[in-house]
Amino acid sequence: MNLKPIGVIYTPFETSEGVPIQSIKSDTLGEVKLSEEYKEGLESLDGFSHIILLYWCHKAGSTSMMVKPYLDAKKHGLFSTRAPSRPNPIGLSIVELLKIENSIVRFKGADMLNGSPLLDIKPFVPEFDNRLDATSGWLSKAFKEQGSSFTADDRFEGDA
Amino acid sequence: MNLKPIGVIYTPFETSEGVPIQSIKSDTLGEVKLSEEYKEGLESLDGFSHIILLYWCHKAGSTSMMVKPYLDAKKHGLFSTRAPSRPNPIGLSIVELLKIENSIVRFKGADMLNGSPLLDIKPFVPEFDNRLDATSGWLSKAFKEQGSSFTADDRFEGDA
Repeated sequence: MNLKPIGVIYTPFETSEGVPIQSIKSDTLGEVKLSEEYKEGLESLDGFSHIILLYWCHKAGSTSMMVKPYLDAKKHGLFSTRAPSRPNPIGLSIVELLKIENSIVRFKGADMLNGSPLLDIKPFVPEFDNRLDATSGWLSKAFKEQGSSFTADDRFEGDA
Repeated sequence: MNLKPIGVIYTPFETSEGVPIQSIKSDTLGEVKLSEEYKEGLESLDGFSHIILLYWCHKAGSTSMMVKPYLDAKKHGLFSTRAPSRPNPIGLSIVELLKIENSIVRFKGADMLNGSPLLDIKPFVPEFDNRLDATSGWLSKAFKEQGSSFTADDRFEGDA
């Protein structure tokens, strides 16, 4: 199970400071530079409004099974959070596709660090990927208490 | 970028035959057996109705940049499809969380092969992960023409 980078994601974020908590809360532009050998695989992608980027959280720190997430003062199990420091630090961002030019994919909704190695691009398919009946566990309370500000200073680096 | 399996996903599907095309179309039960060392990381997860499983498509075949997806007779770029045979064959399934017992996570919506190595569990957070305005590219036409039958025989093995 060896990963190979298939490209690089470029964003304005060199450090975790100022990185939006999730792509849905981000208006920041970013671009994927796909390696030339995979360029043909982008055919037909431009019809989708959103894409799923999988990438390696290359600056993720050491992993702990209990973490304090940005929206709560209480620690929670790692797998109930989107913290990037995971056993396999694979980041997942659903971003808005803006334009494809050759092997460059421009998008809106950057929430990852500059230089993140790209692992995969999948089309976001609303018929497959939306869950309108889903509930948010401990985050429900946090959302209610903190509203939609999403500006807590103790957010994770490149929440994934 | 070396992956380590953090558990195994058990499903009734030994081969691609009969595997539902996507988890949202599956009522099949499955279970994740997380390695003991990561068990604590499941704390708080039980409050979420849905979880995102990332896994290695261990039986994925060779990769081609143009593939014929199950819902179209025409070839499309790999990255505009959910075919499992990708440069990094990481499967992504959003499944319904049923119960957590020690290090076992029972779920509904299995669409991956039995024995798939687990890479990550993330909570599905509707506030982060739904995209109600998303459009489906070439799949829109396919959905319209084929309705919601999703029983095409030429589906991918463990679409991801």
